[in-house]
Amino acid sequence: MIDVCLLGTGGMMPLPYRNLTSLMMRYNGKSILVDCGEATQISIKQKGWSIKPVDAICFTHFHADHISGLPGFLLALKNAEKTDPLTIIGPKKVEKVVNSLRVIAPEIPFEINFIELEGDQFDFEVCGLRAKAFKLNHNVLCYGYSFELDRAGEFDVEKAKAADIPLKFWSRLQKGETIEADGRVYTKDMVLGPGRKGLKITYCTDTRPIPEIAEYAKDSDLFICEGMYGDPEKQEKAIEHKHMTFYEAARLAKAANAKETWLTHYSPSLTHPEQYMDEVRKIWEPIRAAKDRDDKELNFRD
Amino acid sequence: MIDVCLLGTGGMMPLPYRNLTSLMMRYNGKSILVDCGEATQISIKQKGWSIKPVDAICFTHFHADHISGLPGFLLALKNAEKTDPLTIIGPKKVEKVVNSLRVIAPEIPFEINFIELEGDQFDFEVCGLRAKAFKLNHNVLCYGYSFELDRAGEFDVEKAKAADIPLKFWSRLQKGETIEADGRVYTKDMVLGPGRKGLKITYCTDTRPIPEIAEYAKDSDLFICEGMYGDPEKQEKAIEHKHMTFYEAARLAKAANAKETWLTHYSPSLTHPEQYMDEVRKIWEPIRAAKDRDDKELNFRD
Repeated sequence: MIDVCLLGTGGMMPLPYRNLTSLMMRYNGKSILVDCGEATQISIKQKGWSIKPVDAICFTHFHADHISGLPGFLLALKNAEKTDPLTIIGPKKVEKVVNSLRVIAPEIPFEINFIELEGDQFDFEVCGLRAKAFKLNHNVLCYGYSFELDRAGEFDVEKAKAADIPLKFWSRLQKGETIEADGRVYTKDMVLGPGRKGLKITYCTDTRPIPEIAEYAKDSDLFICEGMYGDPEKQEKAIEHKHMTFYEAARLAKAANAKETWLTHYSPSLTHPEQYMDEVRKIWEPIRAAKDRDDKELNFRD
Repeated sequence: MIDVCLLGTGGMMPLPYRNLTSLMMRYNGKSILVDCGEATQISIKQKGWSIKPVDAICFTHFHADHISGLPGFLLALKNAEKTDPLTIIGPKKVEKVVNSLRVIAPEIPFEINFIELEGDQFDFEVCGLRAKAFKLNHNVLCYGYSFELDRAGEFDVEKAKAADIPLKFWSRLQKGETIEADGRVYTKDMVLGPGRKGLKITYCTDTRPIPEIAEYAKDSDLFICEGMYGDPEKQEKAIEHKHMTFYEAARLAKAANAKETWLTHYSPSLTHPEQYMDEVRKIWEPIRAAKDRDDKELNFRD
């Protein structure tokens, strides 16, 4: 239902064997990118996914490792002959920052719309998903994102009959239409049972572990969370640079009851993230050190 | 004496197996970069060369495939703890373009000096090399570069004796010093024979083949030249987009009498450049289709 691919797992700078952290999601023929550091377009090509359907890019913040790939990415969209509008979402001044970078990508054959995030929580819709941006705790203004795909309730024949809904409207109402006929207004609520569990993906770099993250990530099917340091001795460094250790990320995942958690945004000095995972899993079991281009297909549970 | 590495061979956009065209030269402990497209820093790391000694970056023009890697590269220099000044050379408005890109790399702990190229030919010195920038024929203002390392003449004992130079000054004069003593001025010319053949490297993308290129590339030890298209049927496309075919580049190399020529800046559609090289070598033999990270150590001939 939603395909996700973590295009890279690096923080700070790209390495020959590790791309910068960026997430790509495909849903219903559209794609969303979260962050776009240097060489993001290369990782997408390596994965074999198509660039053209990217209709939205969400930025967490404007440190170069999260946005330096944007000019090249815009030109890649141009080369892919994209003509649909692109929406760019990001913290305050997103339009100014993007336009400044566009000094080397001035001629783009599609419209760019901007959504500037405001406040501690900002709700919006993107490519058919319900999204929330939430403020994190980094050394610059930085947001995390959650994306949700809602799932309607099942069709309830008894309910439809009890409300005396004409049979000819049942299918349209099930699809979510509102119908006016014979002086009555028919809505989907009249034929559907309670909403069922949908899908939820939460993405969160760069930040200290604040309790709000667990609230926004609550019951995520996939929680993608920064883990800058695996070595417990780097705890002070994590505090100083406003990042997290693997253990702090695991405690957030546990508090959020996340069904699956991927660690990412590793320090360049962290060459073997998996070596710390036995200890990390003692805190919360369904968590792993992600690798570049890990992917997953998220489906409604039945 | 001079180490060169062609960090990439791609034009337009980076590919998983082909970096964007960029040249790195090392001489006497300093390094020069020519162009810096997206992921240039990754290619340097793959090569295993050090980023920190880069003291100058020459830009040919401001199309994104030649400069999009700059913000990340500046931060890589910062992470490498560079403190020496960096000189950035490029066409008109280079300072404005670079500062616009620095919206995501504002805090750099070293000075950046700019040299703005003017006119059809611009002479300057960079990291101990004598350099010329020369105007090309592209769809935006674009320059090629030649870099020369001069080689002094041999010490001429008879000449020194004939000019009555005190023995104690011989060694200092040979090193190029000028000495005033006993009411006389002694110069290196008084003890050295005629200058010997030095080293010359010429770099040239993106352009149509104009005769000036062969003049500036004259007798180069290494001529690095764009070859956007290998297929002879792409000749019209080359004219339209102001690029060159392999055959046009080979004719320039022949006219320049270049000792060795590397083709680069291939179209993304050109997957096997070497397939055209038999035909190309019929025009001029010492030429090859370069690959990413090809390197060469250039030494004075003895």
